[in-house]
Amino acid sequence: MGARETVEVTGHLMDSGILSRVLDDIREYGGDFVIEEFDVGHEAHDPSSARITVEAPDEESLQRLLMRLQTRGVNQLSHDDAGVTTADRDGVLPDGFYATTNLDTRVRLGGRWYDVQNPEMDCGLVVEESGSGDRRVRTVPMSDVARGMRIVVGAAGIQVSVPGPAPAVEAAMSFDADHGPERPQTVLVRQVADGMRQSRKDGKRLLWVAGPGLVHAGGVPAMTALVRAGWVDVLFAGNAVAALDIATALYGPTPETDTRPGHEHGHEHRVRAVNTIRGAGSIAGAVRDGVLRSGMMHALVTAGKRFVLVGSVRDDGPLPEVHTDVVEGQRAMRAEIHDIGYCLMMATQLYAVATGSLLPASVPLVCVDINPATVTRLADRGTGQGRGIVTDVGLFLEQLALELVADYRRG
Amino acid sequence: MGARETVEVTGHLMDSGILSRVLDDIREYGGDFVIEEFDVGHEAHDPSSARITVEAPDEESLQRLLMRLQTRGVNQLSHDDAGVTTADRDGVLPDGFYATTNLDTRVRLGGRWYDVQNPEMDCGLVVEESGSGDRRVRTVPMSDVARGMRIVVGAAGIQVSVPGPAPAVEAAMSFDADHGPERPQTVLVRQVADGMRQSRKDGKRLLWVAGPGLVHAGGVPAMTALVRAGWVDVLFAGNAVAALDIATALYGPTPETDTRPGHEHGHEHRVRAVNTIRGAGSIAGAVRDGVLRSGMMHALVTAGKRFVLVGSVRDDGPLPEVHTDVVEGQRAMRAEIHDIGYCLMMATQLYAVATGSLLPASVPLVCVDINPATVTRLADRGTGQGRGIVTDVGLFLEQLALELVADYRRG
Amino acid sequence: MGARETVEVTGHLMDSGILSRVLDDIREYGGDFVIEEFDVGHEAHDPSSARITVEAPDEESLQRLLMRLQTRGVNQLSHDDAGVTTADRDGVLPDGFYATTNLDTRVRLGGRWYDVQNPEMDCGLVVEESGSGDRRVRTVPMSDVARGMRIVVGAAGIQVSVPGPAPAVEAAMSFDADHGPERPQTVLVRQVADGMRQSRKDGKRLLWVAGPGLVHAGGVPAMTALVRAGWVDVLFAGNAVAALDIATALYGPTPETDTRPGHEHGHEHRVRAVNTIRGAGSIAGAVRDGVLRSGMMHALVTAGKRFVLVGSVRDDGPLPEVHTDVVEGQRAMRAEIHDIGYCLMMATQLYAVATGSLLPASVPLVCVDINPATVTRLADRGTGQGRGIVTDVGLFLEQLALELVADYRRG
Amino acid sequence: MGARETVEVTGHLMDSGILSRVLDDIREYGGDFVIEEFDVGHEAHDPSSARITVEAPDEESLQRLLMRLQTRGVNQLSHDDAGVTTADRDGVLPDGFYATTNLDTRVRLGGRWYDVQNPEMDCGLVVEESGSGDRRVRTVPMSDVARGMRIVVGAAGIQVSVPGPAPAVEAAMSFDADHGPERPQTVLVRQVADGMRQSRKDGKRLLWVAGPGLVHAGGVPAMTALVRAGWVDVLFAGNAVAALDIATALYGPTPETDTRPGHEHGHEHRVRAVNTIRGAGSIAGAVRDGVLRSGMMHALVTAGKRFVLVGSVRDDGPLPEVHTDVVEGQRAMRAEIHDIGYCLMMATQLYAVATGSLLPASVPLVCVDINPATVTRLADRGTGQGRGIVTDVGLFLEQLALELVADYRRG
Repeated sequence: MGARETVEVTGHLMDSGILSRVLDDIREYGGDFVIEEFDVGHEAHDPSSARITVEAPDEESLQRLLMRLQTRGVNQLSHDDAGVTTADRDGVLPDGFYATTNLDTRVRLGGRWYDVQNPEMDCGLVVEESGSGDRRVRTVPMSDVARGMRIVVGAAGIQVSVPGPAPAVEAAMSFDADHGPERPQTVLVRQVADGMRQSRKDGKRLLWVAGPGLVHAGGVPAMTALVRAGWVDVLFAGNAVAALDIATALYGPTPETDTRPGHEHGHEHRVRAVNTIRGAGSIAGAVRDGVLRSGMMHALVTAGKRFVLVGSVRDDGPLPEVHTDVVEGQRAMRAEIHDIGYCLMMATQLYAVATGSLLPASVPLVCVDINPATVTRLADRGTGQGRGIVTDVGLFLEQLALELVADYRRG
Repeated sequence: MGARETVEVTGHLMDSGILSRVLDDIREYGGDFVIEEFDVGHEAHDPSSARITVEAPDEESLQRLLMRLQTRGVNQLSHDDAGVTTADRDGVLPDGFYATTNLDTRVRLGGRWYDVQNPEMDCGLVVEESGSGDRRVRTVPMSDVARGMRIVVGAAGIQVSVPGPAPAVEAAMSFDADHGPERPQTVLVRQVADGMRQSRKDGKRLLWVAGPGLVHAGGVPAMTALVRAGWVDVLFAGNAVAALDIATALYGPTPETDTRPGHEHGHEHRVRAVNTIRGAGSIAGAVRDGVLRSGMMHALVTAGKRFVLVGSVRDDGPLPEVHTDVVEGQRAMRAEIHDIGYCLMMATQLYAVATGSLLPASVPLVCVDINPATVTRLADRGTGQGRGIVTDVGLFLEQLALELVADYRRG
Repeated sequence: MGARETVEVTGHLMDSGILSRVLDDIREYGGDFVIEEFDVGHEAHDPSSARITVEAPDEESLQRLLMRLQTRGVNQLSHDDAGVTTADRDGVLPDGFYATTNLDTRVRLGGRWYDVQNPEMDCGLVVEESGSGDRRVRTVPMSDVARGMRIVVGAAGIQVSVPGPAPAVEAAMSFDADHGPERPQTVLVRQVADGMRQSRKDGKRLLWVAGPGLVHAGGVPAMTALVRAGWVDVLFAGNAVAALDIATALYGPTPETDTRPGHEHGHEHRVRAVNTIRGAGSIAGAVRDGVLRSGMMHALVTAGKRFVLVGSVRDDGPLPEVHTDVVEGQRAMRAEIHDIGYCLMMATQLYAVATGSLLPASVPLVCVDINPATVTRLADRGTGQGRGIVTDVGLFLEQLALELVADYRRG
Repeated sequence: MGARETVEVTGHLMDSGILSRVLDDIREYGGDFVIEEFDVGHEAHDPSSARITVEAPDEESLQRLLMRLQTRGVNQLSHDDAGVTTADRDGVLPDGFYATTNLDTRVRLGGRWYDVQNPEMDCGLVVEESGSGDRRVRTVPMSDVARGMRIVVGAAGIQVSVPGPAPAVEAAMSFDADHGPERPQTVLVRQVADGMRQSRKDGKRLLWVAGPGLVHAGGVPAMTALVRAGWVDVLFAGNAVAALDIATALYGPTPETDTRPGHEHGHEHRVRAVNTIRGAGSIAGAVRDGVLRSGMMHALVTAGKRFVLVGSVRDDGPLPEVHTDVVEGQRAMRAEIHDIGYCLMMATQLYAVATGSLLPASVPLVCVDINPATVTRLADRGTGQGRGIVTDVGLFLEQLALELVADYRRG
């Protein structure tokens, strides 16, 4: 680490989460830090303050990190003047330009502090001097830069102030929510695969929780391959997903339903499929009798894996293995919770929430759904160890099978 | 075709879309039909009626198709009695049972019509006779079937009536919307690949329209491979996606941003990246000078492909090639519309709607987004030839590259 | 009706839904029609054709309606030349200009048909003549109109062709889905109020189905007022909404939870609330003993209204009245289905789908939720009579109480 | 404050945000605190620890707060034994029962610590003693409580451990995001009204930013009333919302569009409306000439209020006042930023993000949209002072007009 600088920050640091973000920033920029002094208010409403020495690999990184920290209200201790350089082209800021925030900002020039007029985000700072020697500093958008303008560079000699929390509507949703459907999903698939491999290496069981969207999204071939290859030890699900899987196995997708679920058509199929399995006495019985010959439930039965199906008020039938009493169903799920090393939840909110309540917090759990609301709903139940991935369940399973099942060929 | 039956339907057939659904149903069940008679009302408010002979591969399929058609209010002409069979087990309906709708239903027994009491969906119909010979027919849920009950089988001798449109809230959203994030997405990927291959075989150009979500979702490696392999002739986009792609190319994803975009960090990167390219005079210039060495924009420039970037009010900079005047930008897009054989839109609403307006309806276009609202918004502009796929853009591109680029290896 | 014109259309009319849209268009433009001739293909794959006389209140409306119908491929029978007018200002099209579609279009001039080059949406058509007398017709965007250009006006002399369904990805989601969070919601509130008034006037019962979102969205005061004023006869719900309502009644919203639910806090409240009610033996018992003194469940008990609570796998407790066996729960709901005149479902998918299956199709039902996915999900169960409103449940209830409860004052 | 207890917590306190949540909890339960000791690690990877004295209004509140804090890994310093009480009824836990988390938990009994077997959320803890005097403590769901069981009450003598961050998928979305479409929205409306009143009292200007959804959702009557009553000083918008407002004003909603927008119909209306205004030279000119007589834009012009319209690539026309050059448009917006005291953004993402960049962080801003993605997107631009409300824009405006405009009657 070559470059370092000491900074200070004052405010309701822990309370507002600022300090935690400052440390995140330092890591993101590849830096390190030492907390030199930390003065925490004793009473609930006292502000606290910290003095932190920040290090970065080189001077340029340090300057950019310091600019970044200023967006959090973290300022340099040293009171040097700001650096200033002349723009040599219209419409282009000089290298190392100070990129503005929309916070109240002061710039030190010739030993004096100047307030920046009209703070605006993502601009440069231009220093203007009148004939009479009056200075002012204002923001300039990149496209309004003119050759010859005096532009502030680096983070030295600049102070910003973070306003307190906005008084109006203060309890409403903050914008900080991290909602991202926008993730490099292939990386996440590999992390899930690694988690499952680790769990298996540790001799732990893999728990899956699934909803009907898994079948609708075309995930059955990948799921079946994963079951056969030993990546599913227990499945928690409802009547709907099992009935839909079995209906597809019994009646086959028509050319149309191959790409268009034809919900209503499939619905009638489901009712008949459930009746057929009831006639066979059980799903396991239907497999044994050769009535049910493919699909996810068939794979679970033939591989000798466990499944717990619990009913809900919307069920048709239901299938014979379904626990129609939900308290009994919870007990059956509870009995399978032992030795779980990893839990993957796909395309279900109801069963995911139910499982999240039963599972010890020490078990890593991942919830995959295309609907962000489903993924975030688990927060309501305090299952704080969970992680959510907003993506397409069908394509996710496809990629996961490519990762985990050696000879998996797509559909 | 072995089995056939003549049915009739009366109502505002074309108006309500019923007839079109009936024909869909027949196709879904593998059947065929001949319209024997079609009496269309001459005035706007006259009902019309049709007599149709329906055929199916075998008697069982025909019976199930006829039951299906009844959900549309299509009844058999013949006035035979309904078939009745005795349930031989508790909780299981006999094979071929008539699966109910929640429509008003009548059953013909001994030459008389009986109204079904309490119509309910997905039940069986049980025929009960009192000691005095009074008959009644009622719905029975599967789980309430008792051995010995007399259950209706097949579709003969049953009539249903479809109610008129509900008077209240009649203009609100119908439930018929086909909203499905739930599709076998791997099939859709292949259809898109086929469409693009066909377009190339026809000597037509491939147009892509992209938003920043493409980069956030980790789609750049796949996109770059597709550009290099010749699957992108023209790209329409805004400043944001190009700036984000270039910022990633210039500053690289840190270990953290590899899996967590770190929006704000990336944001500061974007502003500097735009300034750097402005300094180089253009994206093409930055590639020539060796400043920009990877990413989607780099691939387009080195492959000599076309791109049109049009500005928007939220832009930083913008990049030099960006048309800041939107009317000029539309003209530039219009100049690239010729000879397009296929158009793929990803993770953008603004540019998708703009392109949809410019593109002749004869060009197949597909819009991919994880947000259903974006996909359906194109309807507002009447671009009726488009198709939407609600899925994860990153995984979709990954699969598409696996389909189209011979030696593509995942990231 | 002053103005009329005869048009023709050929294609898979019923099949593709075109005819039904044509009739919708005519109504939207305040017109009327007579079907002069309708030739329906007898075999499944035959095209059909129709000749329709269209009427509109005046010539201008008629011309605009005819232009509209052309977007459906409906052309005028008469083969007159197109009208042409000179633009008298830059950037402005003449009144009555023909607004283009992006369909293949021909224009008749001097008895000859000219193909429009580069069809594009929402443009005008400019007629250009070379010195040698060659004519061409092309689209011109509004901003590119120059004074003196010859612009087509009216719909006469114009023919468009609708392409067949796009071959690629043909089974994917069509863009026609009508999704709309964007509705004049105050109008919908009044329609629901009217439907409920009509049902009460008819001596029918009002059925409500509710999920926990009703409480989270602050709907309890409005709901309580509606119960007291007699607008709720039966409530179907799960354990969660009742527990949440009771927890709020017992422990009160803290100043914070007033605007921020504090899910986890509320969650611990819910567990204790359920335990308290179990201690009292029942909700009704807790009301009688003075333990429970406010809220929705309290209002239902004191007003002597019915409620059916059915369990689900995620329940805590559950409350004593909850049917833990879902098949028993379905039976209990079924027993309350009689004489329902109107059904309103709010903020629940699970109980809405369950109720939709039980309810005869003749009962008007409206489903209100802020999540479009919930509203459209009912389609999967074929409950075709339902209507959906995508809006905020709390504000919807507030407005509904203002409509229906004479002295309702906002909380 | 009557009751107090000293607790301790160790870990990466600031880093993980735990401490900030602990303080939130204390406030939510109406308590207060003094930080007795705070030992912050000096190096980046050192854990820190804190000793905090917590106070609550009474002993019962304190016990419940302490149980709450344990979900964060905050344990009591004092090492008393846990309290134990006998359940006197089946299925009901004793008052004051300890409600479990799913964290690893230990209970102190007779001076010894016992690990809780199978940690599960929302259960009680039962103490069991074998004949040989061996003790074990396990979780018991409420419904499995049997009379005579020995149940733990209160928070004394209990220790929980919070696991470190889950190693797998650690960068994926955390479940902590607070998304919530589920808010007591009427309270939020009042807070916005208060913010706007305060701003007006301070002599500041009110800035609105609007998208087309405002018109679709039926918000024009409320918006018009708010403009007339002086609650809008400046409007930032695009071509689409102004064109839609003007089209509705010029052509009026037909009975159908009153409740169903008829997007395509309205779309053709929009193109003609834009052309008409272009013919009049400007929106202001059209108002002056009596061409435009109602709606939001009319109200702004007649009230002499400011508006800045900036173009986008999808625009038709556009309207004469629209800045087609987006950089010029940004300059025009920038020129109106002075003296803004409150900013309300409705149904627009593009213009909200653009405005968020220009606005100083000291201006309170609220973003209202039915789509959670739009609301959270502002986070990408670091506009940290903003607040989001996920609700129906039409009903929100209706309520806001009822709050702010004395004689406002609903449409």
